[in-house]
Amino acid sequence: MLYEISERTMKLESEGKKIVKFSLGDPDEPTPDEIIEAAYEAMKQGKTKYSFSAGEPKLREEIANIHGVSAENVVVTPGSKWPIFALMYLLFKNGGNVIVPSPHWTSYELIAKSLGVEARFLRTDLDTDWKIDVKQLEGLIDNKTRLLILNNPNNPTSKVIDDRTLEEIVQVASDRKIMILSDEVYSEISFVKTKSILDFDGENVLVNSFSKTFAMTGWRVGYVILKRELAQQLVKLHQITLTNIPVFIQQAAIKALELRHEIANRIREDYRRRADLADRILSKTKLKFTKPDAPFYFFPKSDGLDSEKFAFDLLDKGVAVTPGTAFGQYREHFRIALTIPYEEIEHGLEQICGALE
Amino acid sequence: MLYEISERTMKLESEGKKIVKFSLGDPDEPTPDEIIEAAYEAMKQGKTKYSFSAGEPKLREEIANIHGVSAENVVVTPGSKWPIFALMYLLFKNGGNVIVPSPHWTSYELIAKSLGVEARFLRTDLDTDWKIDVKQLEGLIDNKTRLLILNNPNNPTSKVIDDRTLEEIVQVASDRKIMILSDEVYSEISFVKTKSILDFDGENVLVNSFSKTFAMTGWRVGYVILKRELAQQLVKLHQITLTNIPVFIQQAAIKALELRHEIANRIREDYRRRADLADRILSKTKLKFTKPDAPFYFFPKSDGLDSEKFAFDLLDKGVAVTPGTAFGQYREHFRIALTIPYEEIEHGLEQICGALE
Repeated sequence: MLYEISERTMKLESEGKKIVKFSLGDPDEPTPDEIIEAAYEAMKQGKTKYSFSAGEPKLREEIANIHGVSAENVVVTPGSKWPIFALMYLLFKNGGNVIVPSPHWTSYELIAKSLGVEARFLRTDLDTDWKIDVKQLEGLIDNKTRLLILNNPNNPTSKVIDDRTLEEIVQVASDRKIMILSDEVYSEISFVKTKSILDFDGENVLVNSFSKTFAMTGWRVGYVILKRELAQQLVKLHQITLTNIPVFIQQAAIKALELRHEIANRIREDYRRRADLADRILSKTKLKFTKPDAPFYFFPKSDGLDSEKFAFDLLDKGVAVTPGTAFGQYREHFRIALTIPYEEIEHGLEQICGALE
Repeated sequence: MLYEISERTMKLESEGKKIVKFSLGDPDEPTPDEIIEAAYEAMKQGKTKYSFSAGEPKLREEIANIHGVSAENVVVTPGSKWPIFALMYLLFKNGGNVIVPSPHWTSYELIAKSLGVEARFLRTDLDTDWKIDVKQLEGLIDNKTRLLILNNPNNPTSKVIDDRTLEEIVQVASDRKIMILSDEVYSEISFVKTKSILDFDGENVLVNSFSKTFAMTGWRVGYVILKRELAQQLVKLHQITLTNIPVFIQQAAIKALELRHEIANRIREDYRRRADLADRILSKTKLKFTKPDAPFYFFPKSDGLDSEKFAFDLLDKGVAVTPGTAFGQYREHFRIALTIPYEEIEHGLEQICGALE
């Protein structure tokens, strides 16, 4: 449903229609100039050849330094979706099931489905502040459970997992010998500080991306941090699929890391202003929602809403949102991504509010 | 073995050692300036966002026009290796076997192995001019055979399949309802004209890449042409893995196609000179080989040679070649890629000849 809405939106736009796009986790800001210039310089220097399937040594080292690991634990990837697919491809050769707290990013479910892996959803709700119930998690685990995917901060709720709950989750996973894959692509720009999965011992995996922090969604560059043996398996998979991430893109990523604090701070503050604005507007309506801990999303609920019908009708009126059903059994919810210019947010939200009346 | 040699070569180089690299299918020429400038312009215009998982409409149309198909049959991919993996991932969900003429590009075998697909090799030999024996092909087919991979022109032999043999192969595959995946990444710069799989009717697939024709190996951009339903399945797989190829890279590819004839002619003539030079030098030795129909490779045989030992010893002396075992049961062969500057070829080949004495 997420992809249907976004492909339809792109199609309408390519036909010349103006769409207010609350539907994409794609920041409206351009990629910073310095990053573009770094890519261009690298191209001119001939960094347009085959290279290491694990990523450029310098980039791996920089990433390793940030996370306090060794470079051999870092593999550079095309975004964060690929390593999730790739790891599940490697881990589930002999079957098994994966546990995913819900609402969840569509891709986790579609990846599991494509690989023939059973996905078990751990429901969380607005009423209980989207908290993960650890007892319920324990109940979902059986001897075929191989993986737990955390998305912290979460897409679509923009909630972070509080430290105590995260500790309990890690303990349960450790006791039951289940690997955790933690997708932390929004963590660097989160409003609320949250622990990383790397703050805990264990055979866990961190997935991260340059997309959100540096407005580099279309560059397709991210990374994964994992134990050495699994890293080597992933590199072998890269050798027979992608070969390598373009080196000039990796040079751009190195530049991004140099400017990390400055860019992340700017993007974080920008989205904090947007979130405050949206909070003010939506608080005047009957919509129920939690205020985001992180960019980019609101995931409000309107009692009795059929969000699929709502989203398609709204798209015809020129506003794109994503129905809650794209993220699990959340038909009364819809997702608003604040990834449009500040000036357009107010008008766009008012159109949504009008359509709900 | 291919990847072991190339990763070891890169490692030695990163330690400052000078290696004469006859080991890589990666042209030494830089990517043409116009292509780099097109990418840079696109980046500056903000083409750094998420986009269509099938590829940019304009690029798909240009490719479709070249091949006389519809744009909906074209999917833009990161190089040519990914679509081979991806199609086999999609086609072999319920098992089966694939037939691959040998010697063969390493990746076909490793992809099949990773996916748990049985690869059946159809041996060809130097003595019979690397011709595919269609009777032998028929003997390998059973009711679990789903795919035949052709590599035309072939890596490592640089031979093209003659029209009559290709017609017979297509007929057999069609009769037995086997799909052909034809990897034609060297076709545009081939010295000898060869038919494309698209010149025949049937549910066949063409894989191509910008890598070899435009000296764009590290850009990771290629494409696949296939029937509509399979194209849609591939696009769905892109949505849960890669999302899209960076749009600025696709803009560079559009520029490459504009300059197609000029660039391909230049590269073809350049490699023809290199092949003539290598032919002159190697003809003076006891090596047995066929003269290439296409860039970039020679695949000579030295009776009694252990090419793995030979390649690793030679690498220590500063010259990289690939042992024949990387391409199947061809221990007495090794592959020479003429992807180094013309001036270095003579000296490098003499080192190889010296090591063989």
